[in-house]
Amino acid sequence: MAYYLGLDIGGTYLKAGLVDEAGTILRQMKAPTKGQVRSAGEIVAEAKRLLDELRKDTPGEIASLGVGSPGVVAHGRRIVRAYNLPFDDVDIASMFEKIICLPTAVGNDANVAALAESRYGAGKGKKSVLLVTLGTGVGGGLIIDDSIYAGFNGTGLEIGHLVLVAGGVPCSCGRNGCIESYISATALIRQTIEAGERDPGSKLGRLVRSGANITGRTAFKLAEDKDPAALKVVQKYIGYVGIALANYINAYLPEILLIGGGISHAGPAFIDAAAKIALDEAFVFPEVGYPKITAAALGNDAGIVGAALIGKENCLSR
Amino acid sequence: MAYYLGLDIGGTYLKAGLVDEAGTILRQMKAPTKGQVRSAGEIVAEAKRLLDELRKDTPGEIASLGVGSPGVVAHGRRIVRAYNLPFDDVDIASMFEKIICLPTAVGNDANVAALAESRYGAGKGKKSVLLVTLGTGVGGGLIIDDSIYAGFNGTGLEIGHLVLVAGGVPCSCGRNGCIESYISATALIRQTIEAGERDPGSKLGRLVRSGANITGRTAFKLAEDKDPAALKVVQKYIGYVGIALANYINAYLPEILLIGGGISHAGPAFIDAAAKIALDEAFVFPEVGYPKITAAALGNDAGIVGAALIGKENCLSR
Repeated sequence: MAYYLGLDIGGTYLKAGLVDEAGTILRQMKAPTKGQVRSAGEIVAEAKRLLDELRKDTPGEIASLGVGSPGVVAHGRRIVRAYNLPFDDVDIASMFEKIICLPTAVGNDANVAALAESRYGAGKGKKSVLLVTLGTGVGGGLIIDDSIYAGFNGTGLEIGHLVLVAGGVPCSCGRNGCIESYISATALIRQTIEAGERDPGSKLGRLVRSGANITGRTAFKLAEDKDPAALKVVQKYIGYVGIALANYINAYLPEILLIGGGISHAGPAFIDAAAKIALDEAFVFPEVGYPKITAAALGNDAGIVGAALIGKENCLSR
Repeated sequence: MAYYLGLDIGGTYLKAGLVDEAGTILRQMKAPTKGQVRSAGEIVAEAKRLLDELRKDTPGEIASLGVGSPGVVAHGRRIVRAYNLPFDDVDIASMFEKIICLPTAVGNDANVAALAESRYGAGKGKKSVLLVTLGTGVGGGLIIDDSIYAGFNGTGLEIGHLVLVAGGVPCSCGRNGCIESYISATALIRQTIEAGERDPGSKLGRLVRSGANITGRTAFKLAEDKDPAALKVVQKYIGYVGIALANYINAYLPEILLIGGGISHAGPAFIDAAAKIALDEAFVFPEVGYPKITAAALGNDAGIVGAALIGKENCLSR
């Protein structure tokens, strides 16, 4: 029985795991990435330390390393851009292969997470899976027939950057009104603070004024207490999520849409409410079945498991 | 050498063609569809008349029939809905097989046109092709690795119905602000008339007041004469097309985007101007190559050729 190393490079943490054939993480470790402070070489060296630790006392042969990274990954080897990380057209697969002595593949973190969800998570057994991650940004990945679909050169997709409100709120990508700028956790926090400022007498308004830490769950929590300002925020946010999901259905018609990221746990009814809007609005027909919309299952583990998966498959295809 | 029949069912015309192995239409015929006046059976009978005519004196064996239809087509056989046509969950493949005695496959007209463009048109040799048709509506199809990608149940995609302006202009699909309601020929005509009414002293305004027939080319023509009102319409329209194309690049990252429909001939610079905006806005990187954006090549023939192609491939896969 072979084992596979998966490395998830995040803006905050490097997470490494030892994964078995069944997609189970047997052991995992993490260390701070320290963002822009380090060079690519230093991050790779730190990752090697974690990976070496995991390789000790492994019950069998380790076949490969897979790496998930934010940003633009080309040809399974090079990180072309990683925004908050110092990978500027770096052949990171070769860097790892030299010091780790394992065949290595690199993929976009959202794409590998989608692959993990489609193999071992909530998308298991489905012909096509779209993972939509509502986090700091809006990312995700499309899996068709068990493979990542990442566009003709493998650097896509950017499902968070479809304009939803032409001329709308500025987006991190330089455009205006992208889906990300309306339904990411960052967007919800902005919407929550703005609503609090508009309605200072509400519970939400008092909380915002108090200087408390506003998160993507704040409005959902206060909405449970029936605070009208919070309810309005939540309702509007769910409306945007619903429209965005309808767009994804019309664009991809996947068998299942999985909602991941912190906000997917916001409230028990959140995903169902957004799904209802989406299925009402999209081109779907009872005669041929509706796409399913549900929460992703693997949470943060999807990054490590998906990374290990692409390492494994790169190796098998040699 | 075998030959293939292709039938393109449109809202206005039934068009049938005899297609050879190279995707060339050797002969074609058409007859009015007459929209809602006829029943499905009458349309099929009329189509049979055309097809029988084409079969006379064919130089070799006819292997199959393929049918392209607007609307929602399931499993290559049933038209679930066709909006302006009387096909309400009709197994049209079986209807044709009974009276034509040829194995028959049915597909969505936009999807089969995209397939034709990818095999014999401007998308030849490309790994992934997105056809975007700017006509009465906005349709199109996605071809990945030489096959139509039509979603998990085969009834997608609806690329014209991604919301671009949340809360915007009402769309034919019941939503507000879909791409179709900003960049279809219908939308451009509406934008042209509205601009003429806002600015009655302009050339455009005088033309609109005169009761002349306003088409998708009117504003483009007057813009060539430097009419300011028309220039503004064209500029704004191209802006929307650019944003929509950027969305398609971020959503699909196809190797080539083909622009079809009447408006694709609007002006020599139209597609280039929209493409420039799209490539400026989308996530594309010189290190890994840009998607190409150009006019579709097959024009109206794409419908017949694509229909013949799905008939042929359905037959070969038996």
